[in-house]
Amino acid sequence: MKIEIPRDCDRLGGVQIYGLQKVYELDSGGNFGKENNTHNNVIRSIPSEALYERQKNMAIVVPVKNERLKLIEGVLVGIPHPCQIIVVSNSPRGPVDRFQIEKEAITNFCKFTNKRVTVVHQKDAALAKAIELAGYGELLGDDGLVRSGKAEGMIMGTLLARWLNNKYIGFVDSDNYFPGAVHEYVQEYAAGFEMFDTDSTFVRISWNSKPKVMENSLFFAKWGRSSVHSNKTLNLLLSYFSGYETEVVKTGNAGEHALTVDLALNIEYAAGYAVETHHFVNIIESWGGVLPPKDNVDQRDKVTICQIESRNPHLHESKGDEHVEDMIDASLSVIYNSPLCPELLKREIAEDRAKRMNLAEAEPIAPVKIYSNLNNLNLDVFLEHCEAAFASNTESLSLV
Amino acid sequence: MKIEIPRDCDRLGGVQIYGLQKVYELDSGGNFGKENNTHNNVIRSIPSEALYERQKNMAIVVPVKNERLKLIEGVLVGIPHPCQIIVVSNSPRGPVDRFQIEKEAITNFCKFTNKRVTVVHQKDAALAKAIELAGYGELLGDDGLVRSGKAEGMIMGTLLARWLNNKYIGFVDSDNYFPGAVHEYVQEYAAGFEMFDTDSTFVRISWNSKPKVMENSLFFAKWGRSSVHSNKTLNLLLSYFSGYETEVVKTGNAGEHALTVDLALNIEYAAGYAVETHHFVNIIESWGGVLPPKDNVDQRDKVTICQIESRNPHLHESKGDEHVEDMIDASLSVIYNSPLCPELLKREIAEDRAKRMNLAEAEPIAPVKIYSNLNNLNLDVFLEHCEAAFASNTESLSLV
Repeated sequence: MKIEIPRDCDRLGGVQIYGLQKVYELDSGGNFGKENNTHNNVIRSIPSEALYERQKNMAIVVPVKNERLKLIEGVLVGIPHPCQIIVVSNSPRGPVDRFQIEKEAITNFCKFTNKRVTVVHQKDAALAKAIELAGYGELLGDDGLVRSGKAEGMIMGTLLARWLNNKYIGFVDSDNYFPGAVHEYVQEYAAGFEMFDTDSTFVRISWNSKPKVMENSLFFAKWGRSSVHSNKTLNLLLSYFSGYETEVVKTGNAGEHALTVDLALNIEYAAGYAVETHHFVNIIESWGGVLPPKDNVDQRDKVTICQIESRNPHLHESKGDEHVEDMIDASLSVIYNSPLCPELLKREIAEDRAKRMNLAEAEPIAPVKIYSNLNNLNLDVFLEHCEAAFASNTESLSLV
Repeated sequence: MKIEIPRDCDRLGGVQIYGLQKVYELDSGGNFGKENNTHNNVIRSIPSEALYERQKNMAIVVPVKNERLKLIEGVLVGIPHPCQIIVVSNSPRGPVDRFQIEKEAITNFCKFTNKRVTVVHQKDAALAKAIELAGYGELLGDDGLVRSGKAEGMIMGTLLARWLNNKYIGFVDSDNYFPGAVHEYVQEYAAGFEMFDTDSTFVRISWNSKPKVMENSLFFAKWGRSSVHSNKTLNLLLSYFSGYETEVVKTGNAGEHALTVDLALNIEYAAGYAVETHHFVNIIESWGGVLPPKDNVDQRDKVTICQIESRNPHLHESKGDEHVEDMIDASLSVIYNSPLCPELLKREIAEDRAKRMNLAEAEPIAPVKIYSNLNNLNLDVFLEHCEAAFASNTESLSLV
């Protein structure tokens, strides 16, 4: 991979947010191209070998819910071989056992590829028990099982990545039509960790474009409406503290992201559409040096946020259930309700929202559910019971 | 890359046509995954290093005509670094000099990537002269320059690949929206040469699917109408000689293909839409052992045709100028007019066509223009004058 070094960096306390980095070659070849690795000080040529080394310690979490098997298989095809894959499925188990079908298809695929894949169902009772015993019952619903939702599946994936001893964790959606785009994301995760080799690095992908079908042809939109709002508002938040207007944030709600497991186990997860934006907000809350320390977070640590612009357009299955207004509301809610948010910005967010939604007057935005810092979970207890859960061979857990 | 070995092989004289091969992983990692390389006898795991070694001797020809610069850049981004790139442009030089703009954009891109790119204009006078002096004037029009057309650009690209001492040549269209798909094609070219390491190997890609915009959503069509006709007819031709019905041919008009330069300089090129299908027909004419030897082709040679099914859908810019009926006609014409074609099949082709086009009765199909075997060109003379042409620094030739 050939990638430019970041041109900008905004700092807030221990948080470094690097500007968007452009990719110049998806594949810059192997180590034999050494003479090229240094041809230009502002372009890094990262040989495949270095990416694979990172990926050997990387888990890729693929949340699944009723996806077509062809799409899931395509996503697995795109993930580079060295990665550990963790499929967290919340597909129904009745009347047709969709999960069982998924597991069979993935198991079959792995016979051909020898890929390391772990498949779990989000409603597995043994894992829920392990989470409960570890003191993180807030993740569970009234039935004692992990709640439904993508964020909840991401938390499960994070814990499993740690159980499997990975250093890095990345997320990839299961509805991507282009295996080559999935491959690019994972290569970029590895490139980010190679460029910013810290214990708390966060790599976030900004899609090149998102093709939309309009009047029987394709239009390659650069920014979705939801991204526009969350990026703008996060930038306003940063500007407020730094006194300099900034546009550094381009990945406020980047679904495609990866981070060190250390960092993933040290932050909060918001439920629903807000999860990605809240990661940003929560990192500034914890390490930005603005709020007093909380949650046993060591404020002397540094967090590095790296943003990479992918080259492939993002073409995923449209299930027609994207509620853009809800997405905007959710991501603005976590900014609005953060103790960081100054009154001035709160007012601006509420007024913008009133205009957008044709409300008579500005109203407060309801908070979304937020799971507390994962460091509230007793990791040792979880790992012990997780081990036992997999050893018990229940059919909703499977190391392929 | 992880790829299955072919399950079928049809032979005709010295021609081996292998069945479609399925790809299981776009990226199977590097050499350290050795234990995986042998886990399964029917799945080959080809480490990236091996692909790069092939690509060091591979030229990728990108024919360009009025493509958007963003698309051309994306295609260059997708081609792995070790490859030599040859851009053959037939964009207009006036009133706006589109070629000059393309060359500047590519030169600028290469400053960031150190990529090896050669940019030539199809109407360059010095190259035309070199071709004429080498005794291959049939490629030139009345103005003494290379004729317009993609096939003609491909011939120029082939000659330049040879001049640049490449062992392999591959073709990639310049209007692909997904750099990741381009990357996949070129990796598959290299995988094909790695699996079938002969002097006359032909690698042809069958697209996974071709998304079409239909009623405001996307439909992933498996086969285009034109592919259906050319594959079916080529299979009938093979069946006629072998006595066994076959479906082995899946890439009758595969635009994405690569072959050894030795083979590329030893076959005919049809003009227009027929170029890919005619390659198939011409190889059977020359090495199938059915017709008497001609064109100084050594019939004792063997030719291996390898077909790989890509995993990425093929999404390219639709200029709305695809004339499907013309494409079908062109590819059937080269089969119909081949000395190989038995009377029975000729009648069937003509009758099918009459039905398809609502003709009152079956008519013969007019032959398309076919450039004679490239071994009719005196290579030494061409190389000498090509060298001189580039040394003269005309602006329509450029080694970036």
